[in-house]
Amino acid sequence: MSRFLRVMTLEGAFGELKKHWRPRPKFADVSLHEAGGRVLAEDAVSKLDVPPFDRASVDGYAVRASDTFNAGEDSPIRLECVGRLPAGIWPRVELRAGKCLEIATGAPMSRGADAVVMVEHAVARKNIVNFYRAVAPGENVARRGSEVKRGATVLRAGQLLSSPSVGTLAAIGFKTVKVYKRPRVAVISSGAELRALGSKLGRGQVYDVNGPAICRAIEECGGEAEYSGIAGDRPSQIAGLVRKGLSSSDVVVISGGSSAGAGDIVPSVVDSLGKPGVIVHGLALKPGKPTFVAVIRDKPVFGLPGYPVSTLIVFDQLVAPHLRYMAGLPPLERKIVRARLSAKILSARGRREFVPVELVRGREGLSARPILKGSGAITALSAADGYIEVPLEEEIIDESKMVKVVLFGGAENA
Amino acid sequence: MSRFLRVMTLEGAFGELKKHWRPRPKFADVSLHEAGGRVLAEDAVSKLDVPPFDRASVDGYAVRASDTFNAGEDSPIRLECVGRLPAGIWPRVELRAGKCLEIATGAPMSRGADAVVMVEHAVARKNIVNFYRAVAPGENVARRGSEVKRGATVLRAGQLLSSPSVGTLAAIGFKTVKVYKRPRVAVISSGAELRALGSKLGRGQVYDVNGPAICRAIEECGGEAEYSGIAGDRPSQIAGLVRKGLSSSDVVVISGGSSAGAGDIVPSVVDSLGKPGVIVHGLALKPGKPTFVAVIRDKPVFGLPGYPVSTLIVFDQLVAPHLRYMAGLPPLERKIVRARLSAKILSARGRREFVPVELVRGREGLSARPILKGSGAITALSAADGYIEVPLEEEIIDESKMVKVVLFGGAENA
Repeated sequence: MSRFLRVMTLEGAFGELKKHWRPRPKFADVSLHEAGGRVLAEDAVSKLDVPPFDRASVDGYAVRASDTFNAGEDSPIRLECVGRLPAGIWPRVELRAGKCLEIATGAPMSRGADAVVMVEHAVARKNIVNFYRAVAPGENVARRGSEVKRGATVLRAGQLLSSPSVGTLAAIGFKTVKVYKRPRVAVISSGAELRALGSKLGRGQVYDVNGPAICRAIEECGGEAEYSGIAGDRPSQIAGLVRKGLSSSDVVVISGGSSAGAGDIVPSVVDSLGKPGVIVHGLALKPGKPTFVAVIRDKPVFGLPGYPVSTLIVFDQLVAPHLRYMAGLPPLERKIVRARLSAKILSARGRREFVPVELVRGREGLSARPILKGSGAITALSAADGYIEVPLEEEIIDESKMVKVVLFGGAENA
Repeated sequence: MSRFLRVMTLEGAFGELKKHWRPRPKFADVSLHEAGGRVLAEDAVSKLDVPPFDRASVDGYAVRASDTFNAGEDSPIRLECVGRLPAGIWPRVELRAGKCLEIATGAPMSRGADAVVMVEHAVARKNIVNFYRAVAPGENVARRGSEVKRGATVLRAGQLLSSPSVGTLAAIGFKTVKVYKRPRVAVISSGAELRALGSKLGRGQVYDVNGPAICRAIEECGGEAEYSGIAGDRPSQIAGLVRKGLSSSDVVVISGGSSAGAGDIVPSVVDSLGKPGVIVHGLALKPGKPTFVAVIRDKPVFGLPGYPVSTLIVFDQLVAPHLRYMAGLPPLERKIVRARLSAKILSARGRREFVPVELVRGREGLSARPILKGSGAITALSAADGYIEVPLEEEIIDESKMVKVVLFGGAENA
């Protein structure tokens, strides 16, 4: 590792990381009651015929269709009702010609019966029923396997499990199902000035903003966050928390202390923990230059900038795609809208810049107002609707130019 | 309660329910680490100035700006470095004219200093630093309160808490925050033919599909589901589970056994449990006719049809809006696309019909294919992209007519 930043593009950093680490999804069996919102990790093959038996699809009378052929509004036919078929009970009787059986929706058909007349088309007087409509064989009967045959593939691996797909899994005989495990990510905040939420701030101290914000960002891309707390700036404490994170989690994210400035010890400490150590230090990204990536014991350690806005933007660009892949989620496709820029943007040449904007709808359509007061301004970011991307080699985007705004949101695991 | 269905429109049912029950949101204080994805229930007012003190916004040297006024690329000015200001420590020294102090990003400014020169514009040799650029007073300094003033309202009640807003709450001094409680919903499945997932099916039996599917649908609109299990068809067992649900939950949903057919005992049992009892029985909706709504002990009991597809569609139309309101979520705005119908739809006059469709993109644009094999076909519903709504008084929609398809998805609490 060099002591100083050798700035790399985002694509370069992805390539470098790929040489040393391949994200590997893991899987877990979960009960259907916990499967909603998870990603299916196996093709779901039906364990049974659905429905599992011929059953009535309406309330009415099970009949032999041929007995009803002459029925009509003005010429009802009469059949003797010889019993009742409730749902949940297997019928022992066989229906003979000239007879009918009262039947409930979902109840199994008895032998001999091949159709159901809806209750609305029949009038019963004691045990004699008048039928005012003819039915064809199979009418109002859901045949065994008519919805799904045993052995048929019903859902494909990779599907996000919604309420209908959870219901589908129940119908085809699943009690538990194989889903992608949420990748586990240890979150460490470094910086001597940081204090835990709720504690009294001394002079010169601030609350740890990145910890809870990154934890939530991890959940938003399908991961599970483990907040390790504040590392301060002592090498032994930083090393201890990173080692602990490497043991308990799949990925470690540490924010703060990664610039090449005075208090910059995090990358050196991380680099000392194992091979290959720090493989990327410095991104051609604004905000986000003081970012590093290390691989230790086959696990990645992402070193994000200390500024909250920078940390969330770099997380989104660099960390989130890997977590989504591990969680079985497709790459996030953010919606793009066109808007007119309401103030000139000056950008640093040689760095790709992300400028958070607020969208305002006026008489002349959408306009995009850059709202960043500096990369510390997390409160401004929470009001942003999206961001504009200024390419590596552009320095100025003029006021009132039409720009593409990439909208925030759209994370389905929110 | 009348024994038979008096069919009512969806709007009529909403009106009837409103007479007897007002959904009331409840609130809870949760830690910021659990607040992501929840809905803020209070305006968030900053407990402190952000930043809480004047601090360096870059790594570099704290100076008196006036000392640098003559500095330039070819004419550096020299200042003696008399110490170091790390982050997290309150400076005791006062900077005098002609001197400078090494300072880290985030570190408090010392008295006397009013600007920071970036480390990139300075060269240090031992304790003498050459500065190659002048700075203005305040440059590279984040002033106390420049981002947020103590007492300022930063987030508004009703906001869905994303990662930047969680970070914002941390920055302005929150450790816990007031959010909408997830409405708790008891879920009961009734029907003698139902068996628990994972058990061996006897002849004539099927798995409880509605239980897990409705539980997931509840989560998708911000609620918390309590699965009470299968009630069978014994009145005492149905009454017992509904009573238990009324005690432990805000809302009760029971599916199955609500048609006016042979096995129809659920609405009668529910009606007997308290006043006003069943207030709606029968909806002019397809699927969904055998729906009932009761109010018992100031809590609603929704009786949904037994067919899984019907149950999910009625849940979506009738139950979800109330749960979203209680959860603090805005009404779900589903995306609508226009598509060409690929097969004629015959609809029942006098009932508003929802027809699930699959969208297929062809050479002539989007086409909508009705995919329902019957309202039992949950497996078909899980493949649906959305639905077409056929108004109350329409009976036929012709093939190749352009129709509006309301897309599924878009539930942000999935």
